[in-house]
Amino acid sequence: MKIVSGMRPTGKLHLGHYLGVIKNWLDYQNSNECMFFVADWHALTNKYTDTKELQQNIIELVKDWFACGIDPNKSTVFVQSAVKEHSELALLLGMITPKSWLELNPSYKDLKFNLFFQYVRDFIYGKGLKISEDVIRDIVHKAFYHKKDIDFEGLEEDLLKIGLDSENIKEIIFNIKDGEIGKEIDTFGFFGYPVLMAADILIYKAEGVPVGEDQLPHIEITRELARRFNRFYGEVFLEPKAILTQTPKILGIDGRKMSKSYNNAIYLSESKEEVSKKVMSMKTDPQRIKKTDPGRPEICNVFTYHNIFTDRGVVSQIDSKCRQAQIGCVECKKILAESLNSFLEPIREKRENISDSQVKDILLEGNRKAREKAVKTMEEVRKAMNLWQE
Amino acid sequence: MKIVSGMRPTGKLHLGHYLGVIKNWLDYQNSNECMFFVADWHALTNKYTDTKELQQNIIELVKDWFACGIDPNKSTVFVQSAVKEHSELALLLGMITPKSWLELNPSYKDLKFNLFFQYVRDFIYGKGLKISEDVIRDIVHKAFYHKKDIDFEGLEEDLLKIGLDSENIKEIIFNIKDGEIGKEIDTFGFFGYPVLMAADILIYKAEGVPVGEDQLPHIEITRELARRFNRFYGEVFLEPKAILTQTPKILGIDGRKMSKSYNNAIYLSESKEEVSKKVMSMKTDPQRIKKTDPGRPEICNVFTYHNIFTDRGVVSQIDSKCRQAQIGCVECKKILAESLNSFLEPIREKRENISDSQVKDILLEGNRKAREKAVKTMEEVRKAMNLWQE
Repeated sequence: MKIVSGMRPTGKLHLGHYLGVIKNWLDYQNSNECMFFVADWHALTNKYTDTKELQQNIIELVKDWFACGIDPNKSTVFVQSAVKEHSELALLLGMITPKSWLELNPSYKDLKFNLFFQYVRDFIYGKGLKISEDVIRDIVHKAFYHKKDIDFEGLEEDLLKIGLDSENIKEIIFNIKDGEIGKEIDTFGFFGYPVLMAADILIYKAEGVPVGEDQLPHIEITRELARRFNRFYGEVFLEPKAILTQTPKILGIDGRKMSKSYNNAIYLSESKEEVSKKVMSMKTDPQRIKKTDPGRPEICNVFTYHNIFTDRGVVSQIDSKCRQAQIGCVECKKILAESLNSFLEPIREKRENISDSQVKDILLEGNRKAREKAVKTMEEVRKAMNLWQE
Repeated sequence: MKIVSGMRPTGKLHLGHYLGVIKNWLDYQNSNECMFFVADWHALTNKYTDTKELQQNIIELVKDWFACGIDPNKSTVFVQSAVKEHSELALLLGMITPKSWLELNPSYKDLKFNLFFQYVRDFIYGKGLKISEDVIRDIVHKAFYHKKDIDFEGLEEDLLKIGLDSENIKEIIFNIKDGEIGKEIDTFGFFGYPVLMAADILIYKAEGVPVGEDQLPHIEITRELARRFNRFYGEVFLEPKAILTQTPKILGIDGRKMSKSYNNAIYLSESKEEVSKKVMSMKTDPQRIKKTDPGRPEICNVFTYHNIFTDRGVVSQIDSKCRQAQIGCVECKKILAESLNSFLEPIREKRENISDSQVKDILLEGNRKAREKAVKTMEEVRKAMNLWQE
């Protein structure tokens, strides 16, 4: 199967990325024709004012890929922006994309929601009020997903109930109505990123695209665009299938979603000492206060990590010992740190042996290979659309 | 001054195009560095389902240019889609374009209005009702430009007043609300065409862009994008100035706006006989019924043509003779047909001596020259934005 998949160059990869994306890529690359690309143009859709780290981020990302075992001899590894044909196809697909397909894009709405929620949360915490994040999220969620428009009356009522005074509520609502909140993603480029994504996929006639649940609507747009194009101009594109990836879910060391912005991630390139330090700071079962209290592995984040990174036999020992208060959290974490480090050691080692210029050379070749394919598709596209041909 | 200007390849050029665009281009090309391009990607923004004439339309358009005297030795003449860098820059500019700039684009709203108006008008005429076009236009205009949303209540009231029954009004309003009307331009591509236009202009660092009044908002967006880009990433782009072109207004042979769709245009490539036939069918002063009635040149479409195409001396003779009923409309039209034909003859002749393959060869060279400049700008752009560089 021909598989196309990309990642944004947002910095070094952490365990969440490994389990969510790279692990699958490693599986695919042995028996499929894979194209893995750095989605650097996509990185501009929500971070366009500050690009000073962009080039280095691309190199770091690809270094992580290679360190994990992505093999440029098996797969085509390239940088999106090095294949200009993506932008040409995106432009052409944009011409046949009804705006409504993009307006209904749930991930756009979800991103907007997140920005609203973060604003309200930070506002409330800025006033020194102690209200749980979940309560705030629920309130904003209710108002935001009300109907087509935000339910400001409901929001006002709910915020009053949790103890905000009406002056503060007025300020929150004013700022939301003013369009200040979330305006950084209110660009034409962000609005159209599913079109660019469709171009990324269709230009290589991908058959399969590995995605998480949240990306399904984008693959649907990609498929619809392929159908629409073929109906208007004749068969050129394949309708790619979404490959829903089942991945073990891993949280950050503080129990929240693993994310660079929460500062709770363990990076693939982190040193042995840093990994150990982070593991030792992890939260465990909050009801287990003394070592003699029996623990509940099923609600312990450390145990989830064990399940992924520690040998089966050791995991079941930890499970029963924890429940019987025969092993303390410190000891348990030490075992985890060891498991993690023995998993990460070969990655770290490989990573240290790849230079920036090696990465650049490999990408140069990957870009060339990708371009060759993209150029071929674009010739078909131009012919089908009866566009100018030199 | 460096001047960039383009035309959509929508078919052969008529007198309106000549006076509105080409005449100015001819003036510019002697003392400026001009780049004239076929905006074939733009042609897709509102006509994307049927592209079978696109390539031939490009050739016909450029033939018309050359026949009129556009000189590829003086100016760079090229096809937009042959310079892929336009799409790359459009993509990048899109990332920093607030959606609101495009939503406020008056020409988008005006085009929408026109589609609504045409729908309501055709609906009313389809029901056999005799209501003047102006009245219908006023009613739709009032409702459409009411506030942010269409004033459906006002529309209903006004349509009732002019005699539509409520069933019909219901149908009209249903169809408008349904999104069926005007949906052909509700694409991502159409929405973003000012971004593409900005890329067309900025990529050559144009200093001047000749435009009609209606295009001023687009030049404003182009200037704003240049400023925004330069502020974020450093000085790369020039802010181009709009050159407002003063052109004699010419109407179609039926007195309405000259347009292919009204079937009232005189084409530059039309034969002598066709031109004469069209001129002889032109409407004159409706109050002048017999030859002995004195005429009013100031309201006569034929006289407007004389003013543009007939020698000064002859024009003033016609003026006074018409007022004194000393010249009939048939004779007057014969003089006009002669003037027009002597204006068109050299254009026709030159046009017949240009082959399709000559046009293609010249464009090949023009595309190469344009690409060279565009590539250079894009290198600066990528460097300024810290994008990937091979």
